[in-house]
Amino acid sequence: MANQGNASEVQAAIEAADEVFMAAFSRGDAAALADLYTEKGQLLPTGSDVVAGKEAIQNFWQGAMDMGINSARLETIEVEGHGDTAIEQGKYTLRGEPGNVLDRGKYIVIWKQQAGQWKLHRDIWNSSLSPQGD
Amino acid sequence: MANQGNASEVQAAIEAADEVFMAAFSRGDAAALADLYTEKGQLLPTGSDVVAGKEAIQNFWQGAMDMGINSARLETIEVEGHGDTAIEQGKYTLRGEPGNVLDRGKYIVIWKQQAGQWKLHRDIWNSSLSPQGD
Repeated sequence: MANQGNASEVQAAIEAADEVFMAAFSRGDAAALADLYTEKGQLLPTGSDVVAGKEAIQNFWQGAMDMGINSARLETIEVEGHGDTAIEQGKYTLRGEPGNVLDRGKYIVIWKQQAGQWKLHRDIWNSSLSPQGD
Repeated sequence: MANQGNASEVQAAIEAADEVFMAAFSRGDAAALADLYTEKGQLLPTGSDVVAGKEAIQNFWQGAMDMGINSARLETIEVEGHGDTAIEQGKYTLRGEPGNVLDRGKYIVIWKQQAGQWKLHRDIWNSSLSPQGD
């Protein structure tokens, strides 16, 4: 499709957006994180219903930071572009002080391009750690 | 886009595919479930790494059935069609004997239309129950 764009260009744009996400997380800026989502953005976290809208998203990430999560590393595995929509699959690692891994897992993010900027629209993830923590 | 199709048609097709999934689950047919995925289909379950390919997918669902899950109810919330790809968001309920709810949560499935048939390509979900089980 003409407007699907170059696949590697879309992937590079998503990876750049992930870098912005990681930087905001590392400096503990939950408001900046929330700003990376669309107005109708949703988190789908384990252990709760859907978290919808920027204010709720900001509160969620603030809560994660308050629990001691200092950094979120995102590693893109694959990106599919469909016009103004992109589907990203990746792996995450959450770390606390002093760099210990608190969780690692996988995610799918549905991105929407709005005014030239890629924003997270749906963000679902889960832990790959077994309940025994290995 | 010309090939994006009618949004409600795509949603109806995905809901019909979900019905086939639920029927296969209810009769305990893990092989039929696995057949509903693409050749490169992946499950992204909580507590394990990615489960890739039909044989592994069949084994995963057989394991869930052996653990006492008798039915999986899927409730579509929204579907976006992008040509041969569709993004579905929904809610699930897993039940055992005698109909008690073992888990409920939310999911995103990336579907691919192949030879006119919609198949699950990526399937990620997580529980909405709190760790305390409420």
